[in-house]
Amino acid sequence: MKPIQVGLLGFGTVGGGTFQVLARNQDDISRRAGRGIEVRAVCRRDLAAARAAVGEGVRVVADPMAIVNDPEIDIVVELIGGEGVAKDVVMAAIDAGKHVVTANKALLAVHGNEVFAAAHAKGVMVAFEAAVAGGIPIIKALRESLAGNRIEWVAGIINGTTNFILSEMRAKGLDFDSVLKEAQRLGYAEADPSFDVDGIDAAHKLTLLASIAFGVPVQFDKAHVEGLRGLSSLDIKYAEQLGYRIKLLGITRRRDELGGIELRVHPTLIPTQRLIANVEGAMNAVMVQADAAGTTLYYGKGAGAEPTASSVVADLVDVTRLATADPDHRVPHLAFQPDRLDGSLRILPMSGVRSSYYLRLRVADETGVLSRITTILAENDISIDAVLQRESLEGERQTDLIILTHTTVEEKMDRALEFMQSLPSVLAPIARIRKEDLA
Amino acid sequence: MKPIQVGLLGFGTVGGGTFQVLARNQDDISRRAGRGIEVRAVCRRDLAAARAAVGEGVRVVADPMAIVNDPEIDIVVELIGGEGVAKDVVMAAIDAGKHVVTANKALLAVHGNEVFAAAHAKGVMVAFEAAVAGGIPIIKALRESLAGNRIEWVAGIINGTTNFILSEMRAKGLDFDSVLKEAQRLGYAEADPSFDVDGIDAAHKLTLLASIAFGVPVQFDKAHVEGLRGLSSLDIKYAEQLGYRIKLLGITRRRDELGGIELRVHPTLIPTQRLIANVEGAMNAVMVQADAAGTTLYYGKGAGAEPTASSVVADLVDVTRLATADPDHRVPHLAFQPDRLDGSLRILPMSGVRSSYYLRLRVADETGVLSRITTILAENDISIDAVLQRESLEGERQTDLIILTHTTVEEKMDRALEFMQSLPSVLAPIARIRKEDLA
Repeated sequence: MKPIQVGLLGFGTVGGGTFQVLARNQDDISRRAGRGIEVRAVCRRDLAAARAAVGEGVRVVADPMAIVNDPEIDIVVELIGGEGVAKDVVMAAIDAGKHVVTANKALLAVHGNEVFAAAHAKGVMVAFEAAVAGGIPIIKALRESLAGNRIEWVAGIINGTTNFILSEMRAKGLDFDSVLKEAQRLGYAEADPSFDVDGIDAAHKLTLLASIAFGVPVQFDKAHVEGLRGLSSLDIKYAEQLGYRIKLLGITRRRDELGGIELRVHPTLIPTQRLIANVEGAMNAVMVQADAAGTTLYYGKGAGAEPTASSVVADLVDVTRLATADPDHRVPHLAFQPDRLDGSLRILPMSGVRSSYYLRLRVADETGVLSRITTILAENDISIDAVLQRESLEGERQTDLIILTHTTVEEKMDRALEFMQSLPSVLAPIARIRKEDLA
Repeated sequence: MKPIQVGLLGFGTVGGGTFQVLARNQDDISRRAGRGIEVRAVCRRDLAAARAAVGEGVRVVADPMAIVNDPEIDIVVELIGGEGVAKDVVMAAIDAGKHVVTANKALLAVHGNEVFAAAHAKGVMVAFEAAVAGGIPIIKALRESLAGNRIEWVAGIINGTTNFILSEMRAKGLDFDSVLKEAQRLGYAEADPSFDVDGIDAAHKLTLLASIAFGVPVQFDKAHVEGLRGLSSLDIKYAEQLGYRIKLLGITRRRDELGGIELRVHPTLIPTQRLIANVEGAMNAVMVQADAAGTTLYYGKGAGAEPTASSVVADLVDVTRLATADPDHRVPHLAFQPDRLDGSLRILPMSGVRSSYYLRLRVADETGVLSRITTILAENDISIDAVLQRESLEGERQTDLIILTHTTVEEKMDRALEFMQSLPSVLAPIARIRKEDLA
């Protein structure tokens, strides 16, 4: 089947990332989608730069309407941003009968009702996973995975810039202004940071989450929005002493007794023991309270070229599957089309697994034991990360020796363990637990 | 349009939960699915108990084949469990051209290749979100939301019983056997706990995650499985001293240099600062490392009647949408069908929002200040949760007074703040930050 044809409008950070992810993972993507996804054209004002980035075989245009009007293009990806040109182009694409994938939260939070009504009338899809929380699939989770639930509330850290600033203020005891300058220097904050630090970006995203959670039209103008300006590092310190972290949260909550919902973005104290209170740096996280599922939480990178591209491409795969309306294009049971499963990728035997290790040895408290053990490890090519030796127990001539190793291969560790276990100074079976850094 | 007809096989904890969630949220569910989802028949050996639970209008049968052979039934929900009857019934349902929703990880981890091949040949769906991690939508996240990524590894706490046992061992310093007994008493562990504590249940789930992540057939027999027996509370204590928590993780990782994947369940040390190390009690969490999205994490309840039912119903909604093949049954832009959005559910003004508060007042260090402030709060019906008074700064006659309040309404706090701010002893603008417990 002919690959589905995509036009990319806007070829900045996210546009470039989307192009790269589609190219790099094209084989995996078509194994999943059951059909290729091909970028036919990109639109960027700087034609030469665009041409250099995409190579031959991809049309490069400066006028977005050249993509909207290209009859060969099935899906328009709008990554221009803002409510101006982007809106005109999205409406024109819908009008031309094309599906749209967008990361544009401002457009949808303000004009979503109009955009969705036009799409519905035309029978096309407007997909926007990338508009909220970057690489975290929160739109799909709320819209599909929690479809059996009555949603009670949604609370999220949905702006990475402000979470980075708050993390730095707390970690370094610095005030808002100096951390903002540092964030600008590192590229975490824009030269004009007000969209982020005044909470507007978070409110755009929250507006979309609230509509999906509660089934109400988008109403950005009714959101209460407070940002970080005016927050004192003193309050972060006092909050910490009382057992709380301060995060810029977007909160939307059903209030049945008033027949309404709350929709608000503001700095918020959260008990330190909550997982979401421990989301640091530019990371995002969204908590959802639902009547059947209970609490669920979704965590990941909320911005950046490739995390956002991940969501754009997920939407492209969704649209491709639905636009190719036959049962063979449903989501495959095991994610990949059944005739594209990889039988050659074998499950490795445990002996080949790579891991680091925690070892606990009950040893005789005598000279030379540690040396004999570390020699065995060295001979098996295993390097040591840390050693913890307990003091001898009163009246006993034995002690616990705890060793953390660097990463090695299971079969080397098996061999080393056999030698260590056979030492007369090792008085009990050695405890061996694998260790993973998950970083 | 006529509601889609469902037959429930197995009417225990999850079956009962599914029936209740479908009944309780039927209006929200049909607003989302664009079509009603109706339980036509349930199968349970104890007919009288089933009849009492479902009321009139639902067929009650003791023989699963009565549901499989009912031509009116579109979707069979298999909640019997195990690889015996459940397998026969699922294969028969597929053979009869019915879609299947199941929570049965053992069946799919062992016989999934056969089940999925039969379903593919018949053109029916077999949906199994509920089979892995209860209410957490990890199947959909991996299979759809990360479809643009090359998955590097997946690591998860995917068995609640063992995570509860490990949490208790650490918190109370108890050994495995006594915590297991306590877990059995509380209903967190089965009378025969070996499926959970020996890691088999986690390995079933991990087998499914690995197939979806890497596009390989299910191969449960190749998984390396270690459980908690033999884990000493001493090791939990030593690990803690070294900055690690021990969790029973399922880990599957791509190893390109060997042309294979790791597939293993075992106790694992994880650095305490990782979010997943702080998942306590019976909760589940899954981390995914993917090339574009980076790290994402999914957290929630991994078992129980309603969390599992949440995933069963999500699958029912998915299948209903896909089985009703017209564009009006695609996932709606705002989750609910456009003609079923609720215009009457209004966004509340900020004055009506309920919250608790953190207040910081710079006050004159003189007698009676605290009393005047607490009187104002009491007069406005605001009760105090905690007060923190800083010692006066050397040479200064002022101090910081920090107050945490219980939940109140924003307009009461606004009024109280106005009075407090006008006190001569209050020397600077009062800092007011909202506080949410998110519990």
